[in-house]
Amino acid sequence: MKTLRELGEDGLIERLVRLVPTEVGAAGPGDDCAVVEMGGGALQLLKTDALVERVHFLPETPARAVGWKSVARVISDFAAMGGRPERFLVTLAFAPETAVEWVEELYRGIGDCLARFGGVVAGGETSSLPSGSAAVISIAATGVVARDCLVLRSGGKPGDRVLVTGTLGGSIRGKHLDFQPRLLEAEWLVARHRPTAMMDVSDGVAKDLPRLAAASGCGCRVDVGALPLTEGCSVEEGLGDGEDFELLMTVGEERVRDLLDEWKVAFPGLRLTEIGRLTELGDGMEMKGGWEHFSNSLGNQES
Amino acid sequence: MKTLRELGEDGLIERLVRLVPTEVGAAGPGDDCAVVEMGGGALQLLKTDALVERVHFLPETPARAVGWKSVARVISDFAAMGGRPERFLVTLAFAPETAVEWVEELYRGIGDCLARFGGVVAGGETSSLPSGSAAVISIAATGVVARDCLVLRSGGKPGDRVLVTGTLGGSIRGKHLDFQPRLLEAEWLVARHRPTAMMDVSDGVAKDLPRLAAASGCGCRVDVGALPLTEGCSVEEGLGDGEDFELLMTVGEERVRDLLDEWKVAFPGLRLTEIGRLTELGDGMEMKGGWEHFSNSLGNQES
Repeated sequence: MKTLRELGEDGLIERLVRLVPTEVGAAGPGDDCAVVEMGGGALQLLKTDALVERVHFLPETPARAVGWKSVARVISDFAAMGGRPERFLVTLAFAPETAVEWVEELYRGIGDCLARFGGVVAGGETSSLPSGSAAVISIAATGVVARDCLVLRSGGKPGDRVLVTGTLGGSIRGKHLDFQPRLLEAEWLVARHRPTAMMDVSDGVAKDLPRLAAASGCGCRVDVGALPLTEGCSVEEGLGDGEDFELLMTVGEERVRDLLDEWKVAFPGLRLTEIGRLTELGDGMEMKGGWEHFSNSLGNQES
Repeated sequence: MKTLRELGEDGLIERLVRLVPTEVGAAGPGDDCAVVEMGGGALQLLKTDALVERVHFLPETPARAVGWKSVARVISDFAAMGGRPERFLVTLAFAPETAVEWVEELYRGIGDCLARFGGVVAGGETSSLPSGSAAVISIAATGVVARDCLVLRSGGKPGDRVLVTGTLGGSIRGKHLDFQPRLLEAEWLVARHRPTAMMDVSDGVAKDLPRLAAASGCGCRVDVGALPLTEGCSVEEGLGDGEDFELLMTVGEERVRDLLDEWKVAFPGLRLTEIGRLTELGDGMEMKGGWEHFSNSLGNQES
């Protein structure tokens, strides 16, 4: 009997969606968020994301940072589709011996991030866990995107250039807890330079770029020498570490020069780097080293 | 330092909501679902709810029943506000040694319930847990309710009669896994007899009715002899067992006779029972024995 570790996350989801009613013709399955037609000019975005103790944070991680991270991850997904956050539901599963102060600090961190990037807490739930179980913080949220601002993973075309914001790798040294979702940057990109496809880098470029390419029906090539590596990181770490929460996008070749020039003026403190291009399907290299929930990270947990 | 067990769920939530941005003037906080103004005649409902292994189900519980229960609970909340379900996000946190077949059965159960009551899976996420941690299934969903069909917990008035569907108590013997959300019944009630307040019974009438009364600014009295107890259940079990997932509602005194008569014709297989009334604030009895996540149930888990 196969286990989740053997099958992996992408394989599992593919099997599960066949077992339940889904929306026919909906945009979004397999994208950063689900996209919901509401009638009118705006689309609703739906997203759920969970943090697990000892996987995404440690027992000694400051609770306020865990709170920030829990909602910043979701805001990053809304940004990657050209949208913005609206309402959050917070589900907490904790052992009953957890200190109230820890949970309050977690909520303060959630509040910090929402005060900065927008969105409100509309509801939530607390559940008790058997003692000794890893705490789980599950965030569900609605966002909104103007119909003509929606950017999917599937819009890339062979020849489009691949760009990424910020630097890659080494997030575990701290950035995974206090990263800034690229909300303003995404809004600017969509309004000014219209990426053909976009997503946020959560599992590492080695895993996420092939996903974007596959959604677009393309292959991809990466210029490894061009990767904007975080100081002290190897190429492997830059491609595979995950939790960068940078924007990964494709842009028509003819727009790249102008985009890079204007970016420097608009966001002088943040890099934007061309790292490769989309190719015809079947003409792409395969990258190794991505972060896979079930098969890699938990292997580490148990060893 | 206080722990979650000492503070309890209601006390905790009260403290937490002060720490984050919330929507000014929104209906719904403290109700079964959050209520979102969308413009136009329909309101959106938002709900999140989690099942925890060894708390809400056992390792040997058939996965298909767990899946049914996970979404039926949420549908029950939508029903209790006069609404119906639309889109579901499914977050699964499991240890990596979990069999894929178990998760597939879980999804089949989710599919069974959605096929019966409506709603689609719009997205989801799987996260790995450290080995030995209790599995968590977190369901977030959107629902919809026509503006003039919305029933809150807060609309009850002194003198209103309290009624409940079905029977109370003993859910642990099986009903907590295969209950039928009272979606059709709620729709009928709202269209025909307009309850002044309504909620679903998840923690037991002893805990839930005082919540409804408090939201309505009332006290409450229960005629213990009138309680529709599940066969073999004591009054204490009927009031305190929880997970009945029946509809608890208040109705103007003048409507009760007609309501009960018409109910028998409309739903001959399901009881509807008058169990008490709302009173002036401060004039209500207090009931003991409700089901409290942190202080009672986990005490049992650990003993």
